[in-house]
Amino acid sequence: MKKLNVGLIGYGFMGRTHSNAFRKVNNFFDLPYQPVLKAICGRDENNAKAFAQKWGYESVETDWRKLIERADIDLIDIATPNDTHAEIAIAAARAGKMILCEKPLSMDGKQGEKMVKEIEKARVPNMVWYNYRRVPAVTLAKQLIDEGRLGRIFHYRAKFLQDWTISKDLPQGGAGLWRLDVKSAGSGVTGDLLAHCIDTAIWLNGSIGSVTAMTETFIKERKHNLTGKVEKVGIDDACAFLARFENGSLATFESTRYARGHKALYTFEINGENASIAWDLHDLHRLQYFDHRDEGKLRGWRSIHITDSDHPYMKHWWVPGLQIGYEHTFIHQVADFLAGLGAKKPMHPDFRDALETQYVCDAVLKSAKTGKWEKVPKSK
Amino acid sequence: MKKLNVGLIGYGFMGRTHSNAFRKVNNFFDLPYQPVLKAICGRDENNAKAFAQKWGYESVETDWRKLIERADIDLIDIATPNDTHAEIAIAAARAGKMILCEKPLSMDGKQGEKMVKEIEKARVPNMVWYNYRRVPAVTLAKQLIDEGRLGRIFHYRAKFLQDWTISKDLPQGGAGLWRLDVKSAGSGVTGDLLAHCIDTAIWLNGSIGSVTAMTETFIKERKHNLTGKVEKVGIDDACAFLARFENGSLATFESTRYARGHKALYTFEINGENASIAWDLHDLHRLQYFDHRDEGKLRGWRSIHITDSDHPYMKHWWVPGLQIGYEHTFIHQVADFLAGLGAKKPMHPDFRDALETQYVCDAVLKSAKTGKWEKVPKSK
Amino acid sequence: MKKLNVGLIGYGFMGRTHSNAFRKVNNFFDLPYQPVLKAICGRDENNAKAFAQKWGYESVETDWRKLIERADIDLIDIATPNDTHAEIAIAAARAGKMILCEKPLSMDGKQGEKMVKEIEKARVPNMVWYNYRRVPAVTLAKQLIDEGRLGRIFHYRAKFLQDWTISKDLPQGGAGLWRLDVKSAGSGVTGDLLAHCIDTAIWLNGSIGSVTAMTETFIKERKHNLTGKVEKVGIDDACAFLARFENGSLATFESTRYARGHKALYTFEINGENASIAWDLHDLHRLQYFDHRDEGKLRGWRSIHITDSDHPYMKHWWVPGLQIGYEHTFIHQVADFLAGLGAKKPMHPDFRDALETQYVCDAVLKSAKTGKWEKVPKSK
Amino acid sequence: MKKLNVGLIGYGFMGRTHSNAFRKVNNFFDLPYQPVLKAICGRDENNAKAFAQKWGYESVETDWRKLIERADIDLIDIATPNDTHAEIAIAAARAGKMILCEKPLSMDGKQGEKMVKEIEKARVPNMVWYNYRRVPAVTLAKQLIDEGRLGRIFHYRAKFLQDWTISKDLPQGGAGLWRLDVKSAGSGVTGDLLAHCIDTAIWLNGSIGSVTAMTETFIKERKHNLTGKVEKVGIDDACAFLARFENGSLATFESTRYARGHKALYTFEINGENASIAWDLHDLHRLQYFDHRDEGKLRGWRSIHITDSDHPYMKHWWVPGLQIGYEHTFIHQVADFLAGLGAKKPMHPDFRDALETQYVCDAVLKSAKTGKWEKVPKSK
Repeated sequence: MKKLNVGLIGYGFMGRTHSNAFRKVNNFFDLPYQPVLKAICGRDENNAKAFAQKWGYESVETDWRKLIERADIDLIDIATPNDTHAEIAIAAARAGKMILCEKPLSMDGKQGEKMVKEIEKARVPNMVWYNYRRVPAVTLAKQLIDEGRLGRIFHYRAKFLQDWTISKDLPQGGAGLWRLDVKSAGSGVTGDLLAHCIDTAIWLNGSIGSVTAMTETFIKERKHNLTGKVEKVGIDDACAFLARFENGSLATFESTRYARGHKALYTFEINGENASIAWDLHDLHRLQYFDHRDEGKLRGWRSIHITDSDHPYMKHWWVPGLQIGYEHTFIHQVADFLAGLGAKKPMHPDFRDALETQYVCDAVLKSAKTGKWEKVPKSK
Repeated sequence: MKKLNVGLIGYGFMGRTHSNAFRKVNNFFDLPYQPVLKAICGRDENNAKAFAQKWGYESVETDWRKLIERADIDLIDIATPNDTHAEIAIAAARAGKMILCEKPLSMDGKQGEKMVKEIEKARVPNMVWYNYRRVPAVTLAKQLIDEGRLGRIFHYRAKFLQDWTISKDLPQGGAGLWRLDVKSAGSGVTGDLLAHCIDTAIWLNGSIGSVTAMTETFIKERKHNLTGKVEKVGIDDACAFLARFENGSLATFESTRYARGHKALYTFEINGENASIAWDLHDLHRLQYFDHRDEGKLRGWRSIHITDSDHPYMKHWWVPGLQIGYEHTFIHQVADFLAGLGAKKPMHPDFRDALETQYVCDAVLKSAKTGKWEKVPKSK
Repeated sequence: MKKLNVGLIGYGFMGRTHSNAFRKVNNFFDLPYQPVLKAICGRDENNAKAFAQKWGYESVETDWRKLIERADIDLIDIATPNDTHAEIAIAAARAGKMILCEKPLSMDGKQGEKMVKEIEKARVPNMVWYNYRRVPAVTLAKQLIDEGRLGRIFHYRAKFLQDWTISKDLPQGGAGLWRLDVKSAGSGVTGDLLAHCIDTAIWLNGSIGSVTAMTETFIKERKHNLTGKVEKVGIDDACAFLARFENGSLATFESTRYARGHKALYTFEINGENASIAWDLHDLHRLQYFDHRDEGKLRGWRSIHITDSDHPYMKHWWVPGLQIGYEHTFIHQVADFLAGLGAKKPMHPDFRDALETQYVCDAVLKSAKTGKWEKVPKSK
Repeated sequence: MKKLNVGLIGYGFMGRTHSNAFRKVNNFFDLPYQPVLKAICGRDENNAKAFAQKWGYESVETDWRKLIERADIDLIDIATPNDTHAEIAIAAARAGKMILCEKPLSMDGKQGEKMVKEIEKARVPNMVWYNYRRVPAVTLAKQLIDEGRLGRIFHYRAKFLQDWTISKDLPQGGAGLWRLDVKSAGSGVTGDLLAHCIDTAIWLNGSIGSVTAMTETFIKERKHNLTGKVEKVGIDDACAFLARFENGSLATFESTRYARGHKALYTFEINGENASIAWDLHDLHRLQYFDHRDEGKLRGWRSIHITDSDHPYMKHWWVPGLQIGYEHTFIHQVADFLAGLGAKKPMHPDFRDALETQYVCDAVLKSAKTGKWEKVPKSK
């Protein structure tokens, strides 16, 4: 088993999920590589040191450029706010490092194109952390679709509903709140939540041709934690759009942080000629499945408890009936990345896949301004 | 279509469910007979008259003996408290009337035996209102079992949970409360609720061989509405028992009126070698079904919405997706009774079937006293 | 109790639901009026006679104009295909009859305006059968909103999903299939299903300001049962739209007959600042309710079993835990109509209310063509 | 942070869950101790070495006596079959080691008494791995009960249903199958599954006074993997019992490995005068809660998604809406053990607590033979 030296940039929420994945993956999966937690990089040295101690990182950096220059680092893992992805990723690619980048890839499609260009030129292994593809139930959905079980697809619908920003007193910006600051985040729920929905949708149902959208900012002004002033809110609090996929199916997408009662309710449903599938992040270990070919009087939605050894990834965990959770999706992604590295196979979603999601986000935000249907640009 | 003149005794809750069934059945089912609401009989003349007007009964009686004597009555429907069933039923049988009798059949097995003897001697068509057999989902469960889909049965479990008697201030006895008065009711939850569970269980899974039980009366004294005094409570507030069916399967049964949060939660589940079934009165239009013969990775409990035309009784109602409710079980029973009458076929559950349930109740109550396993007497 | 003579036009599915309501309402509600099933009118005399016998109609007509002329008819109930509503309703209004009209009111807003004009001129009591307002759970939702429990509304979402037209072999038009024939139906799912969603939405959340929509016809040609030829399908098989309500909330609406696994899944959810509500026609006797003011660690969606006597309409039915079904919504509407008649109070939804829904449907269908946001015309 | 050197005995399923807990606990909890994976002990040296490599154990032993003798070991973790617990635990106690022992504590109460005597004499910190107490939803249930929210308790019911031994071809005994071999396991579902139910029940609802039980072995003979012969099956495949708690509440308990469709469905429900609680291992991140003090028309079972920072243990994990799984219960137990060690506070469930569960199991198995109610012996 070869060692793979990881340099992580960012010690926030995503820094924890990634670190946990690197630490655990070899306990559960037989892989050709073993990640080594070589260095953690963050601007605040004390925080970085505390994080290093908690997770077992061997060293600390406060300047990501230095980290990238280090010869003992094989892989750069980007877990910083959206506005920093491009610069770091391009530098890492030029330095010949493998790259794992948090989603969304970039601030917009244009920036994403530059990143893809550089990374493909550098030919470094790369992946974007659209982790929900690797919820076992979602992976099983993909298998079922690829096996042709659904037949012609008529409908796709996805939602990502939260309720954590309803209070007017919540500030925008600052530690843990950069997602509310348009300068750091680029957009609101579109890049943060809908990007997940779009990534899954394209993976499961193919490219999206065109969209019509609306966005809303319910609380127009909030105190900005960094400036201390009440400022105009620049992000979208809610976004919904209609879409037509290239396979002829129709879709609705919706995301908001103002859906009282829902914490992280990412749901999708796909209706095919012969069968339908539904899934829900709040009970992520279940897949709902309806098969019209079942005997008539016994047709019903099956609630499949995705904990059996013949379910994706599950033979690596416990025994039937015993569920895994959110953090395991990151472990699965690392496992697939390392397996792909060993097999010299492409790994997905890569930067180019993530760029397609970025294009859809761009078209959505554009349509919300023009009030018209907008075509989604094609990745070249 | 022949007319069938009905004389109903009792204008309480069950009087309403039966009347509704007689009035509606021909609107939805093609049948050889049409019930005519000929007479309602109740001790309070004003109440009886009001009931007659509301439901369209042609006449009123205040003495059930007179009703039975009337030549223009074909069928006596007994919807009175438990302690009156035997006397009325035996008189009706001797008068050659058809009989529909509310459940439980009798105060105990001994009394039930007399009733069966008389009714079988009189050879009058008869049925007992164990209405839950005719919830379409329950009828479908019966079909699936009869088709052999479950294979060898290992387990049966049933519960009937309510919470309406938790308050200490609730009186026992009096209008609408005779179920709490041991003199009228014979027993508490055993005869009222477990009798339903037992009837369904025997129908679905065959005879029960032996039982061990416990009962409890949580509130020991209550004001008696009829006497005005605080008196000892004679009924069982809760009863649970273990059972062994003659087919070798094991069972648990439980009933209570002290299960906070449950109004009328009658549930049963049956586990077979190949498949399992579960049902729940609070969502009576659904059947839960698990089939181990489904493809491994797609096995799951199916929630079948029992509203299709190939589901029992449902072609008579609306269209798929549109549910029926509690009252329809009585309509189905009348429909089956009238169809059976036309076809000269036996109808179930008849008095003899209900006697078997009575025997189980007796064994349960006996075991609760002896603390031992008790055999269920055999119907001769 | 006064008699109210009913003349029903149409003996199809809706003829049955209405007849059942007229027949049962006085058994369960104390009302100043009693409907009398005076006459059924249908073009096929044999069918009409059979229907009359099944439901107890005193007479049969084959020409609706004759029915309207009859002096012994107080109320005309229109249960015919959409393209006939206007002519019948206008004639009935001119004849001074009360009118109950199936939904949708009309083929489009323009036709609806004429109807409203005539009926308001005639000052006859009138109502449109948007029955889902009177599902007890939905009525409770209305109460909760009117009591201000939700606070500022952010989101509304509704769907009506079916799957009964997926087969290519299903013909369009003919008996029971007029909903697939654009000449009879005016539109597809928009008028048939979304009209229900829109009526409820306006009732619960106020007027809709503007919409952007898409429609699709998945099966382009079907055999027409009346002509015997394969013809272009004129209706919309699926329709989805985004909307902005006048209260500032955002909405998504979707309807289709191609959602495999769903029979009649009408669902809505409304998210307010303080509380959220969700409902689902497949379990119509439940209301989902989330209240943020509940103690933090105990917050959760409550599944309320709407069968208690303090729930809307439920004291008229059975006891807690025992559910009612689809048909009861029509009974409730008749009960409210008759009570309103006695109290000389306006009853809703009336023709004017239904016109507002028609305007939304028009805007939706227009936007599906123009690809732009369309304003909803105001009712004058 | 002090180091705590762990010596684990047993590299099977439980060896994995414990190792994962030791490895992860300090990443998520701030604790006074850090477990060090010092040694793994197993009879098969190759397997032990492979396990050591996978999990990072520093050394390997094949004789547990040697492990206990090692001066560099602070804590012995027993993850071996039931028949070995007593000997190992007693030796470890005598050697002054802290002990974590898999459940059930012992083969029977008598053996358990000896273990308790020795461990209490040695005064070594000890705990038994009844991990389900530390599912956050279960811990919250305990809090709610301790806060007096339920009022007087009327009912407790628990089930643990599995279906993995239905096939006749499954052998008894051998690697991974010792739970089917009565010599290794002591009993079947009683010690394996009901022991969990009993531990939780005593913790939540106090001591059990008496029980009446039945057991069954559905498949009477199976091939024994170790001997290669078809032998009589000695374990109970299914066990159900009625119980009376000392607080006056009634209970039903059931466990089986023959409930088709259920993988590891551990459920419990507790009904109090004012509120009820229900929980289910298949959706372990939810707690069902009903509070009668809620406003009447809005009463319903709340489905609480236990992922908020004010839920037990959850502030250590992710953000609201993101669920954890089975393995986290072990991490919580280690966290509580280490915190207790630092605070010099007793930790539960300890050996004495586990002995009480053992006594209930004994009474259950005795009653299944005698057919009578059996009193549960008191721990001295």
